[in-house]
Amino acid sequence: MTAIHQPKVLSPLQTARQLAAAFAETAVERDQHGGTPKAQRDTLRRSGLLALSIPRQYGGLGASWSETFEVVREFARVDSSIAHVYGFQHLMLATVRLFSRPDQWQPWFELTARNHWFWGNALNPLDTRTLSKKLDGWREFSGRKSFCSGSADSEMLIASALDESTSGKLLIAAIPSGRSGITLHGDWDNMGQRQTDSGSVTFERVRVEESELLLEPGPLSTPFACLRPLIAQLTFANLFLGIAEGAFAEARHYTLKESRPWFKSGVEHAGEDPYVLRHYGEFWVGLESVRLLVERANGLLDEAWSKEHNLSADERGRLAVAVASAKVAATRSGLDLTSRLFEVTGARATHGALRLDRYWRNLRTQTLHDPVDYKLHELGDWALNEALPTPTFYS
Amino acid sequence: MTAIHQPKVLSPLQTARQLAAAFAETAVERDQHGGTPKAQRDTLRRSGLLALSIPRQYGGLGASWSETFEVVREFARVDSSIAHVYGFQHLMLATVRLFSRPDQWQPWFELTARNHWFWGNALNPLDTRTLSKKLDGWREFSGRKSFCSGSADSEMLIASALDESTSGKLLIAAIPSGRSGITLHGDWDNMGQRQTDSGSVTFERVRVEESELLLEPGPLSTPFACLRPLIAQLTFANLFLGIAEGAFAEARHYTLKESRPWFKSGVEHAGEDPYVLRHYGEFWVGLESVRLLVERANGLLDEAWSKEHNLSADERGRLAVAVASAKVAATRSGLDLTSRLFEVTGARATHGALRLDRYWRNLRTQTLHDPVDYKLHELGDWALNEALPTPTFYS
Amino acid sequence: MTAIHQPKVLSPLQTARQLAAAFAETAVERDQHGGTPKAQRDTLRRSGLLALSIPRQYGGLGASWSETFEVVREFARVDSSIAHVYGFQHLMLATVRLFSRPDQWQPWFELTARNHWFWGNALNPLDTRTLSKKLDGWREFSGRKSFCSGSADSEMLIASALDESTSGKLLIAAIPSGRSGITLHGDWDNMGQRQTDSGSVTFERVRVEESELLLEPGPLSTPFACLRPLIAQLTFANLFLGIAEGAFAEARHYTLKESRPWFKSGVEHAGEDPYVLRHYGEFWVGLESVRLLVERANGLLDEAWSKEHNLSADERGRLAVAVASAKVAATRSGLDLTSRLFEVTGARATHGALRLDRYWRNLRTQTLHDPVDYKLHELGDWALNEALPTPTFYS
Amino acid sequence: MTAIHQPKVLSPLQTARQLAAAFAETAVERDQHGGTPKAQRDTLRRSGLLALSIPRQYGGLGASWSETFEVVREFARVDSSIAHVYGFQHLMLATVRLFSRPDQWQPWFELTARNHWFWGNALNPLDTRTLSKKLDGWREFSGRKSFCSGSADSEMLIASALDESTSGKLLIAAIPSGRSGITLHGDWDNMGQRQTDSGSVTFERVRVEESELLLEPGPLSTPFACLRPLIAQLTFANLFLGIAEGAFAEARHYTLKESRPWFKSGVEHAGEDPYVLRHYGEFWVGLESVRLLVERANGLLDEAWSKEHNLSADERGRLAVAVASAKVAATRSGLDLTSRLFEVTGARATHGALRLDRYWRNLRTQTLHDPVDYKLHELGDWALNEALPTPTFYS
Repeated sequence: MTAIHQPKVLSPLQTARQLAAAFAETAVERDQHGGTPKAQRDTLRRSGLLALSIPRQYGGLGASWSETFEVVREFARVDSSIAHVYGFQHLMLATVRLFSRPDQWQPWFELTARNHWFWGNALNPLDTRTLSKKLDGWREFSGRKSFCSGSADSEMLIASALDESTSGKLLIAAIPSGRSGITLHGDWDNMGQRQTDSGSVTFERVRVEESELLLEPGPLSTPFACLRPLIAQLTFANLFLGIAEGAFAEARHYTLKESRPWFKSGVEHAGEDPYVLRHYGEFWVGLESVRLLVERANGLLDEAWSKEHNLSADERGRLAVAVASAKVAATRSGLDLTSRLFEVTGARATHGALRLDRYWRNLRTQTLHDPVDYKLHELGDWALNEALPTPTFYS
Repeated sequence: MTAIHQPKVLSPLQTARQLAAAFAETAVERDQHGGTPKAQRDTLRRSGLLALSIPRQYGGLGASWSETFEVVREFARVDSSIAHVYGFQHLMLATVRLFSRPDQWQPWFELTARNHWFWGNALNPLDTRTLSKKLDGWREFSGRKSFCSGSADSEMLIASALDESTSGKLLIAAIPSGRSGITLHGDWDNMGQRQTDSGSVTFERVRVEESELLLEPGPLSTPFACLRPLIAQLTFANLFLGIAEGAFAEARHYTLKESRPWFKSGVEHAGEDPYVLRHYGEFWVGLESVRLLVERANGLLDEAWSKEHNLSADERGRLAVAVASAKVAATRSGLDLTSRLFEVTGARATHGALRLDRYWRNLRTQTLHDPVDYKLHELGDWALNEALPTPTFYS
Repeated sequence: MTAIHQPKVLSPLQTARQLAAAFAETAVERDQHGGTPKAQRDTLRRSGLLALSIPRQYGGLGASWSETFEVVREFARVDSSIAHVYGFQHLMLATVRLFSRPDQWQPWFELTARNHWFWGNALNPLDTRTLSKKLDGWREFSGRKSFCSGSADSEMLIASALDESTSGKLLIAAIPSGRSGITLHGDWDNMGQRQTDSGSVTFERVRVEESELLLEPGPLSTPFACLRPLIAQLTFANLFLGIAEGAFAEARHYTLKESRPWFKSGVEHAGEDPYVLRHYGEFWVGLESVRLLVERANGLLDEAWSKEHNLSADERGRLAVAVASAKVAATRSGLDLTSRLFEVTGARATHGALRLDRYWRNLRTQTLHDPVDYKLHELGDWALNEALPTPTFYS
Repeated sequence: MTAIHQPKVLSPLQTARQLAAAFAETAVERDQHGGTPKAQRDTLRRSGLLALSIPRQYGGLGASWSETFEVVREFARVDSSIAHVYGFQHLMLATVRLFSRPDQWQPWFELTARNHWFWGNALNPLDTRTLSKKLDGWREFSGRKSFCSGSADSEMLIASALDESTSGKLLIAAIPSGRSGITLHGDWDNMGQRQTDSGSVTFERVRVEESELLLEPGPLSTPFACLRPLIAQLTFANLFLGIAEGAFAEARHYTLKESRPWFKSGVEHAGEDPYVLRHYGEFWVGLESVRLLVERANGLLDEAWSKEHNLSADERGRLAVAVASAKVAATRSGLDLTSRLFEVTGARATHGALRLDRYWRNLRTQTLHDPVDYKLHELGDWALNEALPTPTFYS
């Protein structure tokens, strides 16, 4: 692939499009098999896109969040598992950037860009089964974590544990995935997002150096550090939109090329049926709304990110509202489209070989990360009481 | 199983419940594998339930449609593929009853009851690729049919063909599935309803005797004969409701036994969360509405069936409206429930081993049999213009 | 009117239909003016229908609740204010029947039937501004009540007060509306239900005899007594359904007689437009669902009513679930229909003289009696936790 | 009012806000009375805002469409009748700009700015009852028009007629409202938009000079001229959004200041109720979506407007899609909010004096201008078939 051999002549987005086209060819088959998309991950490594959001001075491509999310959406249209772990790559990088000291994150950024490291996630604050014990100059993490997306085939992990000695303070560390004591169980087998490797990880007396702990400024410590959950949430919103756009494109192709008009419709082509047109009109309004909400939030994140430590709690809060609005709309509109698309394609589109149900399965799975009901609650508290969302790992 | 060894002490519904309990144990696994549920079909044969709707004088159990559909729903709650082919068994029997002479259907009824015949469907009026050629005293059917539910492992088939000599008149025949020239391709592989064997069938110069043709009174010839599509549509409505009820039951079990309350909810059990309760409240209203609509239509079908040739076109039309209302409501309410159920269970319920997505996949697949948009159109024409639905194989 | 001069030859429902036809002629005008529909109330008095639910042995017409609610719906189709006060007439009679001793309610029943008394409502448990003071052999009620539907032009009032001496126990009394100290303010002026006279009432040291207090068995004291709020809720469900049916009928008439097809529709009559038909199809499914839910609940209430003191808490609870299901569905389906109907009539149907908005205004107003959100909560608690609704004045 | 005495020190938007605040004080009362808001129209005249969209070289304020629509929304939040006629003022000015020669529209612009002319609408292409007869050097318009918004108290009218001599070609003229033969019937009495004076107008042999006809380039003659219907549609979208925003603001005020928590909610203030918060969360997502869609379309219109005769049919078509998307979303989201708002305020908010139903009445009335069903059809044709909307007076 030209994109890989001559990466410098293509823009990152062009490279991403070439990769997406290649991912699309095997997406159906890989959805069936599940497991780790090793070849695709290696293609990503070789493409240089793992360093997309890393600033140029550390060897990265220096993309903004808007640009990074554009690539996430590009992937999500054809393969939302890859889009997920790719988006989380940049979320993990943002995590070290936001929670640790420059002398920590700068080398990690450089090593990532140079060595095409893939980062996995073992930070799950609601899973309290991993504890940290303070020893002489280091710590030991022991316990289990579920939902560790992208942990398989990764070079680095962001892992969390509760500190035994300080009544459960959350400690977050960046550690090599291959460190002694870490077992990736490879037990991810879900109805959707089947190649995200979001299985469980066991830590057995894993040694964690002090220099690997993200303590300064630490998790959710400042408005700027509190961007971390918003980057996570906005990654999801972009992912959801990408899935819906992919579903729309495939439905449209099917209606135009394969669907037969219903015998009572009185039209010659399915694409002239008044009810089919109405569905597409509703899909369009939904997609356009979400596109604008997502793009607005992406732009606001870029602004907030550029303010760094000058970012105020109020500015961070307003960004949180924009992100939540985008995510709720992307969730609802996407679930509707990925289920209703079959009404514009007809019964034959349920053929197993097409796996058109994967859009709904992927979206349904990923939209459960945290409850949409509580996002609405949060937005309601803003709309009614002008109370900005309290920063947590989900808000 | 007691149900099978001592069938006489159990009512048909009790027998069905025992079978359903057994089907449930392997339903998840069989959803994964697809193919023909041979063991379950044989259990059905042994149970005597294949003759449920056959009048007692022909050796059957003499059940009304309401009773027959109650069994369909019972099966659909745990395995909608089996429910489908089981419902179609009775639809096929109704087809010969409604379209042929007593000297034709009476022996078929008796043989079915005595030999536990399973009937499959190769009647698809919109698939015009099978033609009938008139020869000396018999006919030859040649061509292909898709969506032939229950054709595998069947003893009898209802097959249709277009008559070459009478500008395409639809001919329907009841023939042994094993007759020379019939090939069942076993090529059904769909995202849902995976064990309905709704694959394609090829007819290569298949000999069809005149006595096997359903010509008197013939398809859709009288109001009574026109009950056939309504039985099909109402089988679907019962099937959809059963799927939704099964999804509800499994969601409820999961919420009560497995779900964790969201950390912002302030409650100790997921079952106390105000938003979870609201979802269940909405599920309940939807299920109750559909239950009443379906039961009303079931009862009206029994009335219409008992009128036989005294059934008027107007009475048949009003039944059609009741059936369509039930089917539309069951479609919409069921799709909502089977997708939204994950919001009351949480992310962990997407685990592959649970295959909780099968409710949506099964319902989404089966609800595409004919477009819900055109059912609404039909109901609108009744509601606004007092025009009763014109009988077709879909109305 | 024949109905009034020869009441014996007409069934109560026939009488009601004649009255409804007469009410319809002035309903638009009276919606505009608001105030007390004195002439219509007097027609109701003369018709004998105020005694519809009173058993024959006390001089009434001996109708069941199903029959009584059928009349409520008949009125609601054309005039939901009259339907409301008429429904409340029977709710007030049920209140004395359920909460007081036979030697209290029997004479009230007889007097009501003989003298065509109209009963008004001044029982509002959430309005705590009226207090009761115990004096020597009688009590004094003092304070204010809002939402006293049907209090104007009534002969009797059901009034409640909180007992000063027993830390706020709710006392309910049946008293003549004209008693000294009672002032009906006639201040009802709302966006909907404009002729229900649901204004405020002031009690200034109103003397209430012990024999007028409903103490045995007292409010919500037994499962049977707890039918009172269910009768109220089911009156609303019937009222909501009647409003929706009236809106449907008027919309249908307008579409057929007045609406012009949209110039892009390609049809000659608005009634052939595919989108218009789709709306009517959806209206129909909604109405049919609600009709079945409401009729089922009506029937269950008749059963529960006939059990009297043998009614168990569990039976009462299951009725409560059926009533709540009907009310939620009637609320949602009705609000949709009364707002969307304009999309099947077109812009000219907004003409002020038609006052077609009154269906939405009436339904929107009345559906706020108690929050539909908490009805869903209650149903969810049943559906998920099998917890039957706790009896209150709203459940 | 400072705004009027010192208009030069305030920006147009500031002036508009001052006017809106004044309009708000009497909006409820005027909604009740209907008729012509003469005082408010005169205030608008004095404010200079009637010339808002007129370029500075002709004496106007030189506002863009985005700025003009911002004022429309500002007014719509408190008084959507005034917002309508004010929006139509600029639509009428755009009509002469787009359809006539510079030597025609330039003087009209100058006279309008100088004399604070108000323009009314008597252009209704679907009302074919007005005919034009060609005489020697002039024409005569005779017939009737309905829905002539803003015709009362106007100085100029845009009027249309079908040419008798050219088989019904649409002729549009700009004529003084006071010309002999024109009768404004003042017969507008609708359930909503009650002060838009959208009544009927009769033309009795009204003399129309050739110089008053908008013939070069003429109606819908070029892509640029075809902006006219898009300006109309986008005026509506802004109007709908403004109504929804006004409803939201008033609901919010009521919930915070007046609503009581439901007794089962367990919270102290209505604003903490989880269901109330959920409604507000949904309102917010809806409003934000529409705001972005509307603002995007406003911006695109500014771009298209600035291209003048270089505007291509394709660019115009894409703007049409953006406008239609905004209008559909504003219609649906607004109808939901204006009806559902009562569920976050409670029953007492139906008090007649508040006239909170006016938001729904106004929106319901105005959203019927042309069917939302056909907007969806149009959008579907774009989304599926990439067919851009064909320009008509509604697309």
